[in-house]
Order: sequence, then structure tokens, then C-alpha cells
Amino acid sequence: MARHRHLRRKRRHIAGTPPGTLVADPQAPAPSIRMIGYGPAEIREWETCTVAQVQAERDKWTVLWVDISGLGDATLIGEIGGIFALHGLALEDVLNVHQRPKTEIFDDHVFIVLRSLLPGPGLDTEQVSLFVGERFVLTFQERANDRLEHIRVRIRQAQGRVRRLGPDYLAYRCIDTFVDAYFPVLEAYGEMLEELEDDVVAKPDPGHVKRLHGVKRDLLLLRRVIWPTREMLNALIRDETPHIAHQTRIFLRDVYDHAVHLMDFVETYREVASGLLDVYLSSLSTRMNEIMKVLTMIATLFIPLSFLTGLWGMNFDQGSPWNQPELRLHFGYPLALGLMACVAATLIWFFRRKGWIGGKDRD
Amino acid sequence: MARHRHLRRKRRHIAGTPPGTLVADPQAPAPSIRMIGYGPAEIREWETCTVAQVQAERDKWTVLWVDISGLGDATLIGEIGGIFALHGLALEDVLNVHQRPKTEIFDDHVFIVLRSLLPGPGLDTEQVSLFVGERFVLTFQERANDRLEHIRVRIRQAQGRVRRLGPDYLAYRCIDTFVDAYFPVLEAYGEMLEELEDDVVAKPDPGHVKRLHGVKRDLLLLRRVIWPTREMLNALIRDETPHIAHQTRIFLRDVYDHAVHLMDFVETYREVASGLLDVYLSSLSTRMNEIMKVLTMIATLFIPLSFLTGLWGMNFDQGSPWNQPELRLHFGYPLALGLMACVAATLIWFFRRKGWIGGKDRD
Amino acid sequence: MARHRHLRRKRRHIAGTPPGTLVADPQAPAPSIRMIGYGPAEIREWETCTVAQVQAERDKWTVLWVDISGLGDATLIGEIGGIFALHGLALEDVLNVHQRPKTEIFDDHVFIVLRSLLPGPGLDTEQVSLFVGERFVLTFQERANDRLEHIRVRIRQAQGRVRRLGPDYLAYRCIDTFVDAYFPVLEAYGEMLEELEDDVVAKPDPGHVKRLHGVKRDLLLLRRVIWPTREMLNALIRDETPHIAHQTRIFLRDVYDHAVHLMDFVETYREVASGLLDVYLSSLSTRMNEIMKVLTMIATLFIPLSFLTGLWGMNFDQGSPWNQPELRLHFGYPLALGLMACVAATLIWFFRRKGWIGGKDRD
Amino acid sequence: MARHRHLRRKRRHIAGTPPGTLVADPQAPAPSIRMIGYGPAEIREWETCTVAQVQAERDKWTVLWVDISGLGDATLIGEIGGIFALHGLALEDVLNVHQRPKTEIFDDHVFIVLRSLLPGPGLDTEQVSLFVGERFVLTFQERANDRLEHIRVRIRQAQGRVRRLGPDYLAYRCIDTFVDAYFPVLEAYGEMLEELEDDVVAKPDPGHVKRLHGVKRDLLLLRRVIWPTREMLNALIRDETPHIAHQTRIFLRDVYDHAVHLMDFVETYREVASGLLDVYLSSLSTRMNEIMKVLTMIATLFIPLSFLTGLWGMNFDQGSPWNQPELRLHFGYPLALGLMACVAATLIWFFRRKGWIGGKDRD
Amino acid sequence: MARHRHLRRKRRHIAGTPPGTLVADPQAPAPSIRMIGYGPAEIREWETCTVAQVQAERDKWTVLWVDISGLGDATLIGEIGGIFALHGLALEDVLNVHQRPKTEIFDDHVFIVLRSLLPGPGLDTEQVSLFVGERFVLTFQERANDRLEHIRVRIRQAQGRVRRLGPDYLAYRCIDTFVDAYFPVLEAYGEMLEELEDDVVAKPDPGHVKRLHGVKRDLLLLRRVIWPTREMLNALIRDETPHIAHQTRIFLRDVYDHAVHLMDFVETYREVASGLLDVYLSSLSTRMNEIMKVLTMIATLFIPLSFLTGLWGMNFDQGSPWNQPELRLHFGYPLALGLMACVAATLIWFFRRKGWIGGKDRD
Repeated sequence: MARHRHLRRKRRHIAGTPPGTLVADPQAPAPSIRMIGYGPAEIREWETCTVAQVQAERDKWTVLWVDISGLGDATLIGEIGGIFALHGLALEDVLNVHQRPKTEIFDDHVFIVLRSLLPGPGLDTEQVSLFVGERFVLTFQERANDRLEHIRVRIRQAQGRVRRLGPDYLAYRCIDTFVDAYFPVLEAYGEMLEELEDDVVAKPDPGHVKRLHGVKRDLLLLRRVIWPTREMLNALIRDETPHIAHQTRIFLRDVYDHAVHLMDFVETYREVASGLLDVYLSSLSTRMNEIMKVLTMIATLFIPLSFLTGLWGMNFDQGSPWNQPELRLHFGYPLALGLMACVAATLIWFFRRKGWIGGKDRD
Repeated sequence: MARHRHLRRKRRHIAGTPPGTLVADPQAPAPSIRMIGYGPAEIREWETCTVAQVQAERDKWTVLWVDISGLGDATLIGEIGGIFALHGLALEDVLNVHQRPKTEIFDDHVFIVLRSLLPGPGLDTEQVSLFVGERFVLTFQERANDRLEHIRVRIRQAQGRVRRLGPDYLAYRCIDTFVDAYFPVLEAYGEMLEELEDDVVAKPDPGHVKRLHGVKRDLLLLRRVIWPTREMLNALIRDETPHIAHQTRIFLRDVYDHAVHLMDFVETYREVASGLLDVYLSSLSTRMNEIMKVLTMIATLFIPLSFLTGLWGMNFDQGSPWNQPELRLHFGYPLALGLMACVAATLIWFFRRKGWIGGKDRD
Repeated sequence: MARHRHLRRKRRHIAGTPPGTLVADPQAPAPSIRMIGYGPAEIREWETCTVAQVQAERDKWTVLWVDISGLGDATLIGEIGGIFALHGLALEDVLNVHQRPKTEIFDDHVFIVLRSLLPGPGLDTEQVSLFVGERFVLTFQERANDRLEHIRVRIRQAQGRVRRLGPDYLAYRCIDTFVDAYFPVLEAYGEMLEELEDDVVAKPDPGHVKRLHGVKRDLLLLRRVIWPTREMLNALIRDETPHIAHQTRIFLRDVYDHAVHLMDFVETYREVASGLLDVYLSSLSTRMNEIMKVLTMIATLFIPLSFLTGLWGMNFDQGSPWNQPELRLHFGYPLALGLMACVAATLIWFFRRKGWIGGKDRD
Repeated sequence: MARHRHLRRKRRHIAGTPPGTLVADPQAPAPSIRMIGYGPAEIREWETCTVAQVQAERDKWTVLWVDISGLGDATLIGEIGGIFALHGLALEDVLNVHQRPKTEIFDDHVFIVLRSLLPGPGLDTEQVSLFVGERFVLTFQERANDRLEHIRVRIRQAQGRVRRLGPDYLAYRCIDTFVDAYFPVLEAYGEMLEELEDDVVAKPDPGHVKRLHGVKRDLLLLRRVIWPTREMLNALIRDETPHIAHQTRIFLRDVYDHAVHLMDFVETYREVASGLLDVYLSSLSTRMNEIMKVLTMIATLFIPLSFLTGLWGMNFDQGSPWNQPELRLHFGYPLALGLMACVAATLIWFFRRKGWIGGKDRD
Repeated sequence: MARHRHLRRKRRHIAGTPPGTLVADPQAPAPSIRMIGYGPAEIREWETCTVAQVQAERDKWTVLWVDISGLGDATLIGEIGGIFALHGLALEDVLNVHQRPKTEIFDDHVFIVLRSLLPGPGLDTEQVSLFVGERFVLTFQERANDRLEHIRVRIRQAQGRVRRLGPDYLAYRCIDTFVDAYFPVLEAYGEMLEELEDDVVAKPDPGHVKRLHGVKRDLLLLRRVIWPTREMLNALIRDETPHIAHQTRIFLRDVYDHAVHLMDFVETYREVASGLLDVYLSSLSTRMNEIMKVLTMIATLFIPLSFLTGLWGMNFDQGSPWNQPELRLHFGYPLALGLMACVAATLIWFFRRKGWIGGKDRD
């Protein structure tokens, strides 16, 4: 199952490797670099470019956005790191794609790690690393995709604030895109829980427990991503770094509110799922109770009657007047039937008094 | 069911839309504007007014209260925002009516989001947005209603503090109105729990579990509204903004106490509901125990006796003296009955010793 | 039941009433005022006095203690509030007797709300409101009673610190009296739990669950009072108000320790009660297990034997040599009995191997 | 049971007694005073001494250690308090021996309350009160004992730091002694839990639940002592009092680590105990399941067969060719047996398919 | 079992021993000392060396790394402590190898305690103690091993930062090595849980509970090590000590992130394990339900039919026309069979209506 990958997210870091050593995952795709340089007035875009071009454009633009997709080449990523003077540990974290979301403030830049949900049924996430410096934004993604395309469109169209404001605003737009992508997923879980709720209340079924367990487990995994995302945003808003302008902090507070809202969903859904398990178990107990009641009623009613039929089915020698004289009575059989009816009536009266018959407490 | 809407509260925000873009919900009713301008001495009221009128009255009054009901027109709301220089993100939150309660302090105004309970059986809430500036209060509500009418009455009658004090006091009166409206709802849950408590203790029934689950779920939803309301009030009291006077903070502390009281109710009720589920389950187990005891007693009593009747109902050839000689005894039948009575008496003695008969531990 | 009143403690505050409006509960008893003025050297006492007398004695004494019992007269209480310049919201809280314990620091006085346990079986509490100002202490109680009499006795006898120290020390003595009154109640719950513990371990009974639920619920209610009492005391010790002398804070720390101790009791008892519920349920399961074992043993032993008796009770035509030849054997019956004994012995051996017979794992 | 005393630890404080009143427990033993005065160079020891001697030696030594065992004489303890200018509330706490561990910093001295475990099967504790002043240490114990003898030995032998350092170091040594005494007790619970773990996993038994409940309860009581001990040590390290030297704080941090370690044990053991209860209950359910399976198999196998024997045991008039013609068949009986064998085989096949037979999921 | 040692980790500290007394465990291996002195330019290594050599090289190198394996000689360790002026309490903790991970900041050095996982099936850990001073690093390990060999290799090869930076960086490399060694262990638990998850969902088995209990218990033990490791790293980053350079703190923040990641794994796994226990128990209940349903159906179907066969197997005197006239009917037997078929059909219809037959809610 897809979700298995989440529980034991293997770290490729080999114990003993010195820190800051860049080792690319051999299975990772080769990097391709997209670059946009822009300012309020001018803009230039490179669909694919080389490290040399990046080096050349460095410091020429108000904002230089270098978007690297694919992490399969440690040397190239090291070179990019050299151009922008990125910290070695941060670069190592870019390649080691199993980081928790976090913010790290360095003197020259801010390093942000995010997890972006992949489309598909599993809850697979991809690591997105952002560097925000004085005049640049670097984004590292594991695979090429068009999730940030809508921002590029706005930059090209010179619409809105993005052209007027600095790299921190661009970074905010990227973070906002990745965080908001969690909403439809959580809404899908909300819908699933509502359906389960209707089903469990209407007709509990063992399949529900497995689905509930699956939902709880997935929510656990989502919490493991959303919680540190919230912390990451909080650190970004709170920390005193010159790379995030006061104005941008107001926008980041808005993303922070979204992350809080997401956590809210996750926690509420987890509690609803736990509550549903209780409903399932108690309705199972209730049904067991009812089944037992039926069995007990039938058994308790017929066992004494069967004893009586057995009694009069015995073959004692009819020669002795002491042996089963009732069998020789003229009205023996009707009397026997009457006695059985009396026993049955008594037992039914007893069941009624116990509240086992009468519909009131059946479901 | 009405309450389903709560679990997955859809956000209409389309990923990729730049922040601060105002998009109205096409199904939202068209806005209507009510306005009151007042000071200690004078007052003027407009039942419905235009954006131009709002613009004209701006800064003419000690307090200008603009109350907009209906959020169906993004342009109009944008124009109002322009008149009072409201922040773009705040205006976006006004239209996107699925915010959690929060306070945001801007330089020129304070932005407050509240959730107001709608009348009716479900726990539907509506978003109320408040802006408090130097000389104005703006209230945005989703639908026209008369919940704030009692404040207008007091303003007209020039009674109490509301005419003497500034916009912050007016905002406090609005917040107080919405927060206090949660009390009767929580009291209704309190009553429901008390009835359930009496019922569950007296006669547990599977319907109780569903009702308990419903109550727990509703309390979860209420907590999701009340908890951030408390935080919102706390931020309002604590934050150093010139728009909230020291004197008003004392009043807000009172609303804060109410919110704490509400949370207190919610948490206590949740614990009582959980406790009742335990009582239900344990009483189910107890009844199962008793049912099983009855079944076991009857079965254990009659199964050996039935075996005996079966034994003497066998058709072994009576020609051989070794075959069932007891059937040919003169007192065979009375002896057999006596033996059965002995077996039954022994078993009943055994049940008594086990404590299964004797009333002591029946419920 | 008495305790029902606690779960939904109705607030009489009508939404829409402007804050600070004094409305007395029509069922509250009429107020009676007792007053003591004292200093290190002189003392004067008024058993019942009028508002005018209170006005006259204001500021004449080192400590003026006005003790109002009964809150049925909003005008009178408003007048008293006027004499001592009490804050309107605080006065409203005095009349609205469903406040949580709290401390509010105003410029001129400290306002303290406490809850005092009423004697009787239920956990009914009454609100006690204290105002501590520079030269006065006001105590408002819902009903006349002699709980503070012992302090008056000490004042009259000029014993101890109370005559030498200021109004804050007198307030401390009052708070201490009300907090310490919770100890015997909690000790009673401790005793109840110990008895329940012995009972549940010795002989679990369905009545125990109801009693445990009752104890847990009562402890929940006590926690709802004691927790904010602790917070109230903490605020009193911590807040920088000139109305509480440093020396008195040491005494208040002692009351705070008592409140911590009370919370400690409540939490421990709640955990013990939860543990007892587990013991109850597991002993129920154990007994069910044993009952099922007996039923299964008896049924499993006799059902195959009964099948054999049924087999040889069939009426196949004895004319054919193939039909039930065993019935015609000379030693058929003894052989049949022997076979049954073998079956029974085998089954008993099987039960022993399973560990169902042998006493070891019976309780 | 010994442990009962813990749950409801009676406070002797009579409500209404003014604070600081010294009332000795009439059952407490009479105090005996031991005193050692020492400095780096000189030492003098008094095995039993009078209050007058204590008064006389006050201020003559670098460290004067007065060790009072037995709290039965309020006057004597009041006099000692007078000599060292102890705070009245602290002295009251010395006599009222049901305090939680705590530190109180007064201007002239530090007051420390500890609880010392008594030897024996119950978890009875005794209160130890310490006062640390500029040149003295006072220790108050409920009963005479030799727990601090090893410190006296070191003082006499002039070994180690104790003779060189001040009263704070002596106090540290006392505290260390009492805290370390909890380790063997917790290790005993660890051993008990390990044994229980082996037993519960191997062969669950109802007695285990009672033992687990006992262990959980005892750990609850231990936590109630150890948690405030940790807090007490934390306060002692953190608070800015001149009576604890910086150097001694390093030693106290070591005791604090021990207390943290103890809490760690308590919490781990509590979780292990809860886990064992789950194991017990699930193994009970598993056994119930197995018992039910055996019963169901036997009953389901033989009930249909018995029905057939009953069928052919009926006494319909054999004169009619329609009445039970099978009984008159030449091979009726073998055919009947064959039919029964088929039914039994079908049922056994059904059980196998259900997975009820086959050993795999038996325990 | 190996893991038993963890629950009750015996402390060897004898109560009464004065603090700072060095007592070696008599079973600990004799110490062997390895030493490397290095600076950016020069390096010298001693495979085994004496205390005198350590003394001689003190202060000659930029970094002097003394690695002591084996703690069996208290004198030797005391001498080393003397050379580097280590604090007595810290040295005592080095020998008393049951410390929790912690950081202690002394004036002259930083003392760090870590726990290193031993290879093998149990979760045995060994204590590693580090001292970081101005020009030295001391590492104390319980047994000789090659876990730090890879660092020595880098020092010899003069690669990376280790030769250029100070003792704090070396200490960071050691800590990083020990912390990262927990990852493979946790991944193994992740794999185990995934397997268990598949198994429990597919086919619950009593053995699963024991394995789940084992996993939860082991995770509890891991948490007991990892949690204080996290705290230790936090203290190291936060504390203002000159012995840890600002640059190294960035690296330590990376290790701290790893420790947070480890805690994350532990907590997620614990919740998954708890969830699986719920799945197990609910599937047990479901199976019990199904078993009971089968039993009840069979019993309820055949018990009334058997009663009828018993009825017509009675031996009432056929002479009387009132006695069992149905037995004498020409079509008595077919009619009886028909009646039985009707009863059976009715019962089956009843079961269907109850939802007990029809496959839908079987698993």
C-alpha cells in the first residue's frame, strides 16, 4: 500500500559521513533549472538554464528566482549553493529529502523546508526547500511540476504585488500555494468521515473499523506534516531576520492561520474517528446482547418443554402401576399439553418482567 | 443532517488566486447598509444608505457605525474598504466566511472575526467581521437580522455609556451580544445530558449511544468555535493597540470571563458524556452477564435431566436381563424422578454457592 | 437530585441588558448589613445597620468590615457600591451569583469572587464576593450564616494579628475560612472511594458503577470550583496591587498551598475512580468467562451423550438385521453406558488440558 | 490496609483556628533534641539537650545543627522557633504533618518540607521539615530514627566537604538522603511489574487485575509525593536566596536529577501497568472467543443430529404406509447413520472454512 | 528477556555515600586510554597511553581528545579528572552508568551524558560521557568499540572541518554519531508495525497482542532515552557557555532536529500501536458476534423442531382417543414434517429480517 512508505520514511544519511557532505540519491531525476529575474519594470525568463547563467544573473535583478526541479546531481546543487553562499548543512538537507518542515535563519539567508502533497491516492509528500536571500529566491523540488506556474503567470503579467515587492513576498506566495493544497485533502477526509458516521450509526459493519483505522492513521501522518509546518511559519513570523519584511509578516500570519485551521481539522477529525469507534463497539455490544437474548429466550423456553417430552418418552415397564401412570390416563395427552402451555406462559411472563420481550429496548 | 455542514466547512478560496483578491460568493445575498453616526450630543441614523453616503459621513461623527448585512457584492465591499483604508487580507477574510474567530491588529484599525450562532436546531454559525478604527466601527454580517437592534435602541435613547464612549465600547457591546448568545445553547446541552444521565442510569438503551455521540460531536464543534473566541478576546485585551481604551479592556475582560465559562461548560459536558458512555457500556455488560446466567442456569439444570430421560427412552431389547433392568423395576419411575430431583437440587445448590441465585447481585 | 442544579447553572443575565445594570434575583432574600469598625485600639460593632450608617462610618476606622447577607435589593447594593466607589461590572457580578472564582484588580480596590460550599448532601455552592480597599472590606453572601463568626470573635477579643493588621489580612482570614471548608468534603469522598474499592475488589456489583459515576461527576464539579479558586489565589499573590501587603501575601501563599492540595486530592480521586471502573469491568469479564466455561462444559459434555440416547431411542424396524443390531445385543445396554462413560471421560480430559477444570484459574 | 491511610490523609487543622497557632497532635511522641555545632576546626555534640542549651549555642558555631525528633510538644517547638526567629506559618506546617513537599523562602531562612518513606510494606511517609538559616540547620522529624546518622558520622570524622562548607551543604546532604531512599522502593515495583508481565502474558488470571490496580494506585501515591519533591528542588535551585550558595546549587541540581529520574520511573511503570491491563483484557476476550467457539462447534454439530434421532424416535402409527416409511427400510439404520455422517462432515467443512478448526488461530 | 534489564535499571549508588565519591563497578572492564592531539597543521596519536602521558600532553594541542573505554578503575578516572579539573559530581556520574542524558555547564567545561544503543536484539544502552573544555574533549565509554573510529579517520586524513575547528566541533561529531544510531532501530520498529498492521487487519491472532505490547513497551523505553537526549541538546544550544562556539550551535541544531524527528517517530508508532490494539479488540468482538450468531441460529432453528420430535416420541397410551390422535392419522408423518418445515421457514424469515443471514454483514 502507498501509505506504508510514510511510516518508515528511510533516511539515506549514512552514519559516519561528515556533516555537510552532499550525496545525491542515485534514483533522483537530473535537475533542470528555470530562472526568472524581475523588478517592478523589467522581467526576463530562462526556461532551462545552466549554472553559468545563474552565476551571471546573480545580483542583476531585484528578485532572481531560481527554481530547480530534480535533485539527482549533487555537484550542480553544490555549485548553486556556492553562487548564493548557502550554508553546507542547509544544502545537505535539500538533498536529504526526508526533513520535517522547518525554518532556519542564517546570517545571509533564510532556509525553509516544506512538504508538498503529491497528487494520487496515497498521502505521499515531496520535500520543497526554499532559500530567501537579499535579492534571490531559490526553490528546490524533487520532481518537475507546474504547481508554481500560476505565480510565474502573475509575474509575467505584472499583476498584483508580486512585481512590486521583494523576494520575501515571492517566497510567501510559494509557501501559501503548498499549504493551501492540504485543504482539499482534509475536506475529502471530512466527507469520508461523514459517510462513515452515517454508515456506522445506521448499520455497523466490521469493514468500518478498518476504514476508521485507516482514516486515523492517515490523519496521524497529516498531523506529522502540518504540525511542524505551523511551527515553521511561527518561527518565520517571530524571528528577527532582515530577509522578511514587516509587510510580508502580515501575509505570513495569514498562512499561519491556514495552518492552524488545518491542525484544527486534523484534531477534530481524529476525535470524531475515535468517537465513531466507540459507537461501533457499543453497537456491537448491543447487538450481541440482543442475539444472546433471543438465544436465551428460545433455549429457556424449549429446554424445559423438551425435558417433559423426554420424560413421557421413557420406556418404563407399563406393567407396574407406579411406572408413568400419567401415560395411561384417558386425558393424559391434553393434560400434558396443557402443562407445557402453562410452563411456556410462565416463562414468557418472566421474560416480559425482565424486559426482554416488548420491543422497548430493541434497536 | 444540518450538522454535516460543520465537519467539512468548504473554503471557497481557489488555490492560485493572489491574496487580497475579493471574490464574493455568488449565492450570498446582496449587501444592505445601515448607518448610525453619533456623539454624546447628536445622533443621525440611515436605514439603508449608499457607499457615497458612507463616504460623505466619514470623519463627521465621534462614532460612525456602518452595519453591512449580506456579502454578495465584492465591489461594494471593496469600496467600503477603500473609504476606511482597510487591509486587503482583512477584506478577503470578510468575504471568505469560514474564518476561525481571531483578532488582527493593523496600524489603522483592529480587525475582529467572530462566529454568531444561527437560530435553529443545527449548530450553524455565521461569520461576523468587525473593524474598529479611530472614529468608526464596521460590522459585516452574512444575512440581515436584528441581533444588534438592542444596541441601536440604547444609542437612540442616549442611555448608558454607549453614547459617551468611543467605537471600542460599541465594538465591545457587539462582541458581548454574540458571545452571550452561546449560553442558552450550552444550557440546552446541559439539560439534554441530565435527561440522558437519568435515562442511561435507569434503563440503558442503544439509542442513548447515538444521542451521546451526537452530543459529544456537537460539543466538539462548539469547542472549535469557543476556544478561538477566547483566544481572540485574550489577544484583544493583551495587545497594545491605541484603538482599545484601557477602560474598555475591563469590559472585554468580562466577556473573556464569559468565554472561559463557556469553555468550562463544554469541557465538563464532554467529560460527563464520556462518563455516561462508560456507564452505558458497563450496564450492557452487566445485563449480558445476567442473561448469560439465566441461560446457563436453565441449560445446565435441564441438559443433564434430559440426558436421563433420553437414557430411559432407549429401545434396548428388553429380553436380555442386562438391558435397562431399571425400566422393569416396580418403583422404577418414582426412583427415576427422585434421581432427577436429586440432580436438580445438587445443581441449584451449586448455583447458590456460586452466587448466581439469591438476588444479591442482580440489578 | 440536588446535583442537577450544578450541571446547568443558569445565568440570569438577559442578553441585551447593558453591562453594569444591577438586577436582583426576585427570589433572593432581602439584604441585612452587619458592620464592624476596628483599629488596634478601638472597636465598634453594628448588628444590623442602614446604608446611611455605613456612609457615616466610611473612613473613620483602620478597617471597616461591612458584611451584607442576602442580595435581594439591587438599589441597596448599588448604594453601597456608590459609597465605596466600586466598579459597575464588579457590582453586577455580585448580584449575578453564578460567577467562577476570580480576582479582579481595580485601581481603588480588589474584587474577589469565591464559592462557599453549603452544608447538606448536594454539592451546592453559594457565591461570596469580597472587596478589599484601602480601609475597608466588604463581604457579600447570598444568605445569612455564621461562617465568619469565628473571625468576629477574634476581632472582639483583640487576639492575634487581625486587630493589628489591615483589611487585606481580614480578607485573607475570610478566604482561608471558605477554602478550608472543602477539606472535610473531599475527605468524605476519599472515604467513599475506599469503601467502594474494598467492595469492587471483593464483589463487583452493578450498583458500584452508578456510585463510581456519581463520585466522578461530583469530583468534576468540585474541580470546576477548586481550579479557578487556585487561579484566583495565584493572581492575588502575583499581581502588583498596593491593597495586598507583602506580609499578607505569605499568608495567601499558605491558602494557595491548600488549594493545590485540594486539586491534588481531586485529581488523585478521579484517577482512583477510573481505575476502579476498569477493575469492575475486568471482573465482570472474568465472571462472564467463568459462567461461559460452566455452560460450555455442561453442554459439551451432555450434548454428545444425549445424541447417543436419541440414537438408540429411534424406532427402526427391528425386523431387519441391519437396523440397530446393537439394541438386540445381550450386553447392549452396559456397552452403551460404557461408551457414554468413555465419551464423557475424553471430554473431561480435554477440558482439563484446556485448563477449564482444576480450580487454578477460577477466582 | 496500610495504604488506606494515604487516600484520605486527614488534616488536623480545625477551621477557625487563627493561622500560626501551634497545636501539637496529642498522639505524637514527645520531642527529643540532638545538637551538633561544628566548624572546619572544632565540633561539639549533644546527644539530648534542652531548649536553654540550644539558646546558649545559637551563633557560636559555623553550623549549628539541631535535630528534633517527635512533635508532641507545641510549646517546646514554639520556643525553638523563637530562638531562630522562624515564621509562624512555617512552624504551624512543621506540626501539621500532612504538608506536600515544598520550599518557602523567608527573609531570614529557607523552609523546606520533605516526605520520608517509612520502612514497612505500606507506602507510609513521614514529614521532615528543614530550616536553613545563616548559621544553622534545623531538622524536624516525626519519630526518632537513625536515617541521618551517616551524616553525623562524616561530621565527626571531619571527612569530605561537610565540615568545610556551610549549613546549605548540610541541608543538601539531608535532602539527598531522603530522596535517594525512594529508589529501592521503585525498583521493587519494577520487579513486581516484570513478574506480573511474565504472568499476564503466560497465563492471565483475575488476581492479576487486583495486583495491577494495587500497583497503579501505589504509583499514584508515589507520584503525589515525588512530583512536588521535584518542584521543591526546582524552587530551591532557581530562587535567589542568599542562604543557598552557588556551589551547593550544583549539588542540588544532582538531587533534582534524581527526582526527575524517579518521576520517570513512576510514569514508565504506570504506562506499563496500563498496557498490562489491556493485555489482560484482550487475552480474556481471546479465551472467551475460544470457549464460545468450542461450545458453538459442539452444539452446532450435535443439535441437527439429535433432531434426526428425535425424528426417527417418533411414534407415528406404523400401520399407514405414509408414516415414517424409512423406519421400515431393510437398510434404514445404515442409511440414517450415513446421512448423519454427511451432515456432520458438512458442518465440519463449514467450520474449517470459517477458520474455527485448524489450530492456526488458537492460542 | 533482554528487555527486563531496562525496566528496573539498578542504581549502584549506596545511600549514605558522600557525593562525589568515586566507586567503580567491580564488574566493569579495566580502562584503556586512546589519545589524539591535533591542530590544523599537526597531529599525533597514542593507541594506548598512560595517565602520565595524558598529563604531559595537556595544553600542548589545539584539541586533545582522550577516549577512555572501560570504567573499572576509579583511581585512574579520578586522576584523569584531576588533570582536567573536572567536577567531582560529574566524575561520579561517569562511573554511575545509569544516568539519563543531560548537559551540565560548569565554569571550566561542559559535561554531557548520552546513551548509546548496543548492537543486539535487546534495547540495551551504554552510557557515554563527554567533557568539552577549552582545549580538550574527553569521552568515557563503558566498553571498547569502534563507533568513533570514522571520526579518527577524518582527523588523520585532515579532511573537512574537524581539523580546523575546536573541541566543540569534535564533541558535536561524537554526539551526532550516537544520536543517528537510533534511526535504524526505529525504522526496524516501523517495519515491524507495518507487518503487524497487515496481519492484524487480515487475520487477528492472540499473538499479535503480545507483540503489540512488546512494541509499545520498547517504544516507551526508547522514549525514555530520546526525550532527555532532546532536552540535553536543547540545553547545549541554549545555554550561554563559551565552550560551544556559535558556529557549532548551528550544527548542534541539526542534531537537535534529528532528536525531534526520532521523538516524532516514537510518538507516531506508539499511536499506531494503540490503534492496532483497538482494531484487534474490535475484530475479536466482531468474530465473537458472528460465532454467537451461528450458534444462535442453529440452536434457535433446531430446538423447537426437536421439541416437536420429542412431543411425538412420547408414549401416551394409544388406547384413549384423546392421547396423541395425530400419531394415528394416515398422513400424520407428512403433516408433521410439513409443520416442521413451516416452523423452520418462519425462523429463517425471522433471521433474515434481523439481518443475521444474507452475507452483508459478515466479514
